[in-house]
Amino acid sequence: MYKLDDKINFQNKRNDILTVGEILIDMISTDYDDHSKCNTYQKFFGGSPSNIAVNVSRLGIHSLVASALGKDGMGVFLTNQLQLAGIDTKCVQKVDYSTSMVVVSKSKSTPTPIFYRGADYYLAYTPELEEAVDNSKIVHFSCWPISMKPVRHTIEKVIERARENNVLVCFDPNYHPKIWHKGEDGVEYVKSMFKKVDIVKPSEDDAERLFGKDTHENQVEKFLKFGAKLVIMTLGKDGAIVSNGKEIIKLNTLATDVIDTTGAGDAFWSGFYAAVVKGYTLREAFTLGFAVSAYKLKYTGAIVALPKLEVIKNMYGL
Amino acid sequence: MYKLDDKINFQNKRNDILTVGEILIDMISTDYDDHSKCNTYQKFFGGSPSNIAVNVSRLGIHSLVASALGKDGMGVFLTNQLQLAGIDTKCVQKVDYSTSMVVVSKSKSTPTPIFYRGADYYLAYTPELEEAVDNSKIVHFSCWPISMKPVRHTIEKVIERARENNVLVCFDPNYHPKIWHKGEDGVEYVKSMFKKVDIVKPSEDDAERLFGKDTHENQVEKFLKFGAKLVIMTLGKDGAIVSNGKEIIKLNTLATDVIDTTGAGDAFWSGFYAAVVKGYTLREAFTLGFAVSAYKLKYTGAIVALPKLEVIKNMYGL
Repeated sequence: MYKLDDKINFQNKRNDILTVGEILIDMISTDYDDHSKCNTYQKFFGGSPSNIAVNVSRLGIHSLVASALGKDGMGVFLTNQLQLAGIDTKCVQKVDYSTSMVVVSKSKSTPTPIFYRGADYYLAYTPELEEAVDNSKIVHFSCWPISMKPVRHTIEKVIERARENNVLVCFDPNYHPKIWHKGEDGVEYVKSMFKKVDIVKPSEDDAERLFGKDTHENQVEKFLKFGAKLVIMTLGKDGAIVSNGKEIIKLNTLATDVIDTTGAGDAFWSGFYAAVVKGYTLREAFTLGFAVSAYKLKYTGAIVALPKLEVIKNMYGL
Repeated sequence: MYKLDDKINFQNKRNDILTVGEILIDMISTDYDDHSKCNTYQKFFGGSPSNIAVNVSRLGIHSLVASALGKDGMGVFLTNQLQLAGIDTKCVQKVDYSTSMVVVSKSKSTPTPIFYRGADYYLAYTPELEEAVDNSKIVHFSCWPISMKPVRHTIEKVIERARENNVLVCFDPNYHPKIWHKGEDGVEYVKSMFKKVDIVKPSEDDAERLFGKDTHENQVEKFLKFGAKLVIMTLGKDGAIVSNGKEIIKLNTLATDVIDTTGAGDAFWSGFYAAVVKGYTLREAFTLGFAVSAYKLKYTGAIVALPKLEVIKNMYGL
């Protein structure tokens, strides 16, 4: 049971958070349009767990990325970006497949991504990865790596190893049917993960894709029923609803100016992680998650130049 | 035996040439650099057989494209481009995979492509495709569709059907190890195709990738030994060497200004096809292939606004 006014007591580990899963090229159109008309695209560093790793490093805790990239120019670009952000790339693997990519048209509503998966799902469970799990306080992953083999087996081993070593396991159930193998029931597999992890942070849309439409309270209940220990369901401009199975609370955002919502969920995770590692209570960490998210929302891009967590804390009078 | 001063006698068919295989998005960087530094890309209609279909339509013969596209904005874009070129899209299939893409950095030497294969290899053998084979004079394909299943089976059935219906079968052995499935011997499979087709047009580089380095004459001999009936090996600025197994001839290019070599091989195929369909002898068709290639070389891009074959013929004093 995670008491909301408690801190999480981590063992003394060399690394704070290990993200396991996708680093991607985000290829984004420069015009607002579907792909049939826009011709020019720009490439960006992408992949939600990797964005979190970069964010938390800027907020002031240590992160490590375990991902598989292709032996191509895109892989070189992404590795360089990680190194520029000061992140150790010893768990970045180079494989004989093209670096994974998502092509998105810039959109004022919900963009329709086109997924090009290659290297990302060939991440292997290596001695370096095992060592990184053992020496981290938190392991984080999303639906990407569990959606396809062989990386699914890698994640299963990572979770098992993390549990044996008292590593906090956090899961972003960002289910999207298009990343799943045709004919496989991704929804059931995602649901089967909740009992194996500590914290899940679905968005309202994730919950609807997994469980259908329902009230916020009922959705949170469903995650708990499937075994989640702490559920943080983000609701966009309406904040979040959190439950530990005993207590259910609602949280407001701290956002004032909303310029671009891309990466706001990752910014929340990042602020939350930085805060729990720095010794704040869960309740304080939720608020700090919203502060980091509010900061990010003022700027364009999935990852922005975040200052240290304490700076953001002061900016929002916390 | 194809006598070089003979015409090819086609049966009376509704369509001239059916290209079976890849339509792709070519995503090309705007800067000369590897992908690690350039950030902006432009998308283009691509895929060698589809380029040939567009070219020959401009040169004045009828073409049909059989390809599989994703149900996404890229698929819409490519379908629109075919329709703008006046090509019937009844054999273009929409499948549940992302439209295939090749990412290339603009390069002054040989660019390194990154392949993202999705929809293209799900082309099915349908009644529409069978009808298109029956009603075409020529069927053309490249190494892409034979490199992966299930489309490989589609090509095998297309060849079988074409042979039963006296359709000329032409094969571009543009072998590239990266489009082949890991662990499979693509070279051996490509070699096994030569006896099943009528005409093969390797480039010098294709021959080297398939057979290793050797003299031009020896390379051509190898294609013949594996069962090819007519071999046209293009040699870049040095023209081509052609053999029907009895006679071996050398041909010069007609190129004067070389602005961009992209698509020059497809332009040669296109001029050759338009010429044989219009009743020129093989020897004349080789020269007209070089005339169309020379015209294309004066402009930037894989496909350029070709005039009718007769206009190009006159321009080059043929």
